[in-house]
Amino acid sequence: MDYEVFSAGDVKLQRGATLRDCKLAYKTFGKLNAAKDNVIVYPTWYSGQHYDNEWLIGKGMALDPDKYFIIIPNMLGNGLSSSPSNTPAPYDRARFPNITLCDNVRLQQRLITEVFGIERIKLVVGWSMGAQQTYQWGCLFPDMVERIAPFCGSARTAPHNFVFLEGVKAALTADDAWANGWYEKPPTKGLRAVGRVYAGWGLSQPFYMQELWRQMGYSSLEDFLVAFWEGFFLPKDANNLLAMLWTWQNGDISDNELYGGDFAKALGAIKARAVVMPGEMDLYFPVVDNMREVEKMPNARCVPIPGVWGHFAGGGANPVDTRFIDEQLKQLLASPV
Amino acid sequence: MDYEVFSAGDVKLQRGATLRDCKLAYKTFGKLNAAKDNVIVYPTWYSGQHYDNEWLIGKGMALDPDKYFIIIPNMLGNGLSSSPSNTPAPYDRARFPNITLCDNVRLQQRLITEVFGIERIKLVVGWSMGAQQTYQWGCLFPDMVERIAPFCGSARTAPHNFVFLEGVKAALTADDAWANGWYEKPPTKGLRAVGRVYAGWGLSQPFYMQELWRQMGYSSLEDFLVAFWEGFFLPKDANNLLAMLWTWQNGDISDNELYGGDFAKALGAIKARAVVMPGEMDLYFPVVDNMREVEKMPNARCVPIPGVWGHFAGGGANPVDTRFIDEQLKQLLASPV
Repeated sequence: MDYEVFSAGDVKLQRGATLRDCKLAYKTFGKLNAAKDNVIVYPTWYSGQHYDNEWLIGKGMALDPDKYFIIIPNMLGNGLSSSPSNTPAPYDRARFPNITLCDNVRLQQRLITEVFGIERIKLVVGWSMGAQQTYQWGCLFPDMVERIAPFCGSARTAPHNFVFLEGVKAALTADDAWANGWYEKPPTKGLRAVGRVYAGWGLSQPFYMQELWRQMGYSSLEDFLVAFWEGFFLPKDANNLLAMLWTWQNGDISDNELYGGDFAKALGAIKARAVVMPGEMDLYFPVVDNMREVEKMPNARCVPIPGVWGHFAGGGANPVDTRFIDEQLKQLLASPV
Repeated sequence: MDYEVFSAGDVKLQRGATLRDCKLAYKTFGKLNAAKDNVIVYPTWYSGQHYDNEWLIGKGMALDPDKYFIIIPNMLGNGLSSSPSNTPAPYDRARFPNITLCDNVRLQQRLITEVFGIERIKLVVGWSMGAQQTYQWGCLFPDMVERIAPFCGSARTAPHNFVFLEGVKAALTADDAWANGWYEKPPTKGLRAVGRVYAGWGLSQPFYMQELWRQMGYSSLEDFLVAFWEGFFLPKDANNLLAMLWTWQNGDISDNELYGGDFAKALGAIKARAVVMPGEMDLYFPVVDNMREVEKMPNARCVPIPGVWGHFAGGGANPVDTRFIDEQLKQLLASPV
């Protein structure tokens, strides 16, 4: 086991359930300094686990473990933190409660304060749903967070993004083997279908036209669909995917008692210096949505990641995009707050 | 029955099968004049039937039945022309043979010549897969076709478009009730899932952000997903959908003995004056693909349909887009060839 677990006790969730003996799995890199002022928080994304984030961490990179204490908290539902697949009855499997962005970030904040005694965070950064958690950090704890860098994500899930996820959900749950979540064996047809539905969304039209999957080591389009896309979702637990999907579909940083659904107010409350990086051709987190958010944030810039990798511009698979993000993070970390 | 049927006898298909007693269902509008020089051909689209095309036909419109003899041929597989759902054994249901664009257009050309004795066509026009047939007409019968106006379609299915359709197919076939095509009762979960997967592709991100489904008469996003999208696909035959999907995925106007896969040559062979109209925000037939095609066509212009209706810019649901297309068609029909 390459990670730690924070036992958070009984956690009251935003939607009413209590997650008893709630677990937050996390991994850290580097050392917390004496001043406790070298902290970076880097949440995970839809179905990702901490090791899926490690491509952005390294000696000489912005997220340099020689300089920073980097914490990757695993999102609830991702199979390592409390999830449908690992929660004991009665809240197991199809009964796992609805989890919000806010639930995730409040739990992460408890880890940071209760376990490490950290009061200030130099940077929160994340991809996709990790970006959504990043925005949520910024407005839930504006006095703790000095900088944020959400990339390929949004502060509120757009209706089109919601619809794309409806397609993913419908494909998964069309499989009888899913059995309303009470499967004993995984609904493999549905999981494979999720991969095929996702494939069109994750990357852009020119990515496929230019056959850039070759750069990722795949030998044909069908090989990419089977080995990458089906291969990615097949080992995932269906209820976990659906739990995180609910979190995503209901993602809204203003949906809590602090902001009462006032989205502009939530964005306006983010004091952190922010660099928001959409993928130029991201099909579900379009640049224009981030532009609109940034207008309402007091200290933010929108810097699109150029190129044709779509949502996967932020996934670590394309070295050019990774360098772009890394360079922006270096500049941000070097900027005064 | 508001349509006619052309019995084409035994039709040898491009991929090797013979479709015996092949039927082409069609509907005509207006009258063929004595000179037989007032003909417009207007093929159908994926899962559409002739009546789905009628929004573009009307007195005072470009496609004016007082002036033109308009023929709408139903695509093979669409449930009215020979299809998995209406072909007798042994080529019925899951055994229905693969049909190409070329098969469709050659059959349509037989209708036009054998039934009506037509030698020249003033205009071929179509949306989506109808646009693909339009291009195919242009290069298979360059001396017959004076003008073409494909809108929201392409001359060759792009890899990303292929991938989107893989998602549709995977969602449909994830339903056990599909039974490899040998269902007795329709696979309704799969058909509904097709609707939900399609919903994200058919319209653009800002369409959903602006809630333009309200203009179409739906009362909520979920109402749009159920009443429009699920409602559209639920009555369709699954094997028919899969047959047309195969035609689409394999759509390539150069994939025949005339052009041997030389796409540039096939485009170059289109003598017709062409106006190609992509939807500005179409997610699966992007403008740039049409731009590249037009460069290789001797007598063509690319005129994007502005706005946020995505692929549905060409579907007749938005009056502004319909007027735009109609105006372009009027100009094209008035242009010399």
